[in-house]
Amino acid sequence: MRVLGEAGMKEKGELVDGMYTRVNHEALTQFVRKVLEKFGVPSEDAAITAQVLVKADLRGIESHGAARLKRYTDGLKNGVVKTNPNIATIYETPVTAVLDGDSGLGQVVSHKAMNMAITKAKQNHIGLVAVRNSNHFGIAGFYGLMALRQNLIGLVMTNSEPLVAPTFAKQKLLGTNPICVAVPTGGEGFVLDMATSVAPIGKIEVARRIGKKVPLGWGIDADGRITDDPEEISEGALIPLGGFGETLGGHKGYGLGVVVDVFSGVLSGASWGGNVGKTQGPVAPNVGHFFGAMRVEAFMPLEDFKARMSKFVRSLKDADKVTGLEEIYVAGEKSTYTEQVRRKVGVALDAKTVDMLTQLGLETGVELSFRKNVS
Amino acid sequence: MRVLGEAGMKEKGELVDGMYTRVNHEALTQFVRKVLEKFGVPSEDAAITAQVLVKADLRGIESHGAARLKRYTDGLKNGVVKTNPNIATIYETPVTAVLDGDSGLGQVVSHKAMNMAITKAKQNHIGLVAVRNSNHFGIAGFYGLMALRQNLIGLVMTNSEPLVAPTFAKQKLLGTNPICVAVPTGGEGFVLDMATSVAPIGKIEVARRIGKKVPLGWGIDADGRITDDPEEISEGALIPLGGFGETLGGHKGYGLGVVVDVFSGVLSGASWGGNVGKTQGPVAPNVGHFFGAMRVEAFMPLEDFKARMSKFVRSLKDADKVTGLEEIYVAGEKSTYTEQVRRKVGVALDAKTVDMLTQLGLETGVELSFRKNVS
Repeated sequence: MRVLGEAGMKEKGELVDGMYTRVNHEALTQFVRKVLEKFGVPSEDAAITAQVLVKADLRGIESHGAARLKRYTDGLKNGVVKTNPNIATIYETPVTAVLDGDSGLGQVVSHKAMNMAITKAKQNHIGLVAVRNSNHFGIAGFYGLMALRQNLIGLVMTNSEPLVAPTFAKQKLLGTNPICVAVPTGGEGFVLDMATSVAPIGKIEVARRIGKKVPLGWGIDADGRITDDPEEISEGALIPLGGFGETLGGHKGYGLGVVVDVFSGVLSGASWGGNVGKTQGPVAPNVGHFFGAMRVEAFMPLEDFKARMSKFVRSLKDADKVTGLEEIYVAGEKSTYTEQVRRKVGVALDAKTVDMLTQLGLETGVELSFRKNVS
Repeated sequence: MRVLGEAGMKEKGELVDGMYTRVNHEALTQFVRKVLEKFGVPSEDAAITAQVLVKADLRGIESHGAARLKRYTDGLKNGVVKTNPNIATIYETPVTAVLDGDSGLGQVVSHKAMNMAITKAKQNHIGLVAVRNSNHFGIAGFYGLMALRQNLIGLVMTNSEPLVAPTFAKQKLLGTNPICVAVPTGGEGFVLDMATSVAPIGKIEVARRIGKKVPLGWGIDADGRITDDPEEISEGALIPLGGFGETLGGHKGYGLGVVVDVFSGVLSGASWGGNVGKTQGPVAPNVGHFFGAMRVEAFMPLEDFKARMSKFVRSLKDADKVTGLEEIYVAGEKSTYTEQVRRKVGVALDAKTVDMLTQLGLETGVELSFRKNVS
């Protein structure tokens, strides 16, 4: 089922039509929180993590949603992810800080770091907070939206396990290293939340699961040749935004991926590039993040800025369209629409995720409340 | 003639082999400075502008080099570019500022703005300076390198005349909107300086001039169809980084282009998107820029950071290569190498640029000193 909006806008999502079931997002959030608590995570931390995960499901980025839960609980089980981390401030100035996440859940230290950046921005116009010794933090957009809700410009970056080959290399040496920039407008805000690879690994995984090919240009095989086979890409690597080689600008996406790692990994004191590990072990991955918040009023009155942003967005939406295309989108628009829809009709979980969550419920004795809503 | 380095590295450049002549960069800088002075630009401002233009020629970005001079002098002649602008500080906080360039040469206000960002960063860890009412500022990398030389991380963005169509649009509503991020390393530094379009307009112009096709995926015709004909692309639009449509991530490059315009255009109080004008008129283009500088020591000791950056760069350079490829590059490496070579053998000017400069020399009575070096 695809839900169509007024302008013909479709729900966004990585799942294929007919391959998912609907689940009430609040019931799912409660379930995830309780499971994390059963693994020893303090209630408040569990609540934050559940909220970040389900936000991904709401916004149509299912690969970063509840589908990740088992990887988190595996990490908590084997001790690679600490249940009660001692989060510490390593460096601090009026406008910057470095936090050490002590290998706890990425969401917990990230939520704290963005709040710190927001506080600094409100006091001193800008706040930049780098994080070391963290784990997977979910979707970058969650933290960008925290800044946006305070009428601040938000910036979020994170490194991640190596999946992308630098231009001309066949080795995985960069994560999909996303960047989020969130900007207040008169409306819902402009929220760019993008991996610096052509495609996210989630879409490769979905294609593998259902035995479908992917578009040429998403990945290379282990010998560095372009392939449309998701199995081969899993053995090989993803390609940086811009594509294979330099002809279509692949070196730019590669460069952006490195920039994300410079801020998230090198400057924070975390791992970088090929050294970033996986959340489920065997050793602490030392993921790094970077959070920024900026006061618009340090440059111009907020209302003027919002009015200008609204006009800018309008000018993009009103552009002459390529024949046959009905809508021009701005960053975040599809996700915002998808969230609005899914708050009503439920988020989308694939069968494998439903099974995994069911298993986790049985294992922990947490009531499978979300299953009541399965449609 | 191509000059090969030790690792087989080639000089970078937009000009085609055999299509250019060599010119001593210092003689060229002096010539450009004197011509600008003849048009009424104060000596110091003329010197800065000449330095920025020739830096582009040194670094292999000829489209932004001395080839631009006539567009600047046309603007100075018809008054669209002011010779003696009254540059003013509109907003200022300890970590931010907004400058009004009063429609002078873009290089002059940009040099001032980056110096202001650097001073703020040295005093308060971060400096962010937005500029309105400016003109074309040359290459973003010039200003990034200013921060880098002070061991600061530099950030530069600018909007520019509309040439790029948003994803699904066939209308030019964004400039090629470059981003530069310059990061100190143990060596020459990491300097990403990239347009947010697949290809720069300079390469389309060169192809047009010599009657060659360009790769499919660089541009669309006036009806929004992909074409390899540079004439048709000139009537149509460039494509955002990531390519046509969304399949290969074109919406990400489009989103990045908007981000650049948000900081450079909307937040600065300049024009944005489709409203940015051309330097040569008929009205002041109100180009906007954004400059940032950041103290590494606000996050970790500088020497630790540089050592980490050097290791990171080394790990990228040492990656397993795709068969047949000899070298993996990091951002800025080719330009740095090209600059080293061209400081010895001269910069590369195409015949049209040599003619244009010769004409300007005759018009202004400035001695054609650079011609002595034409090889």
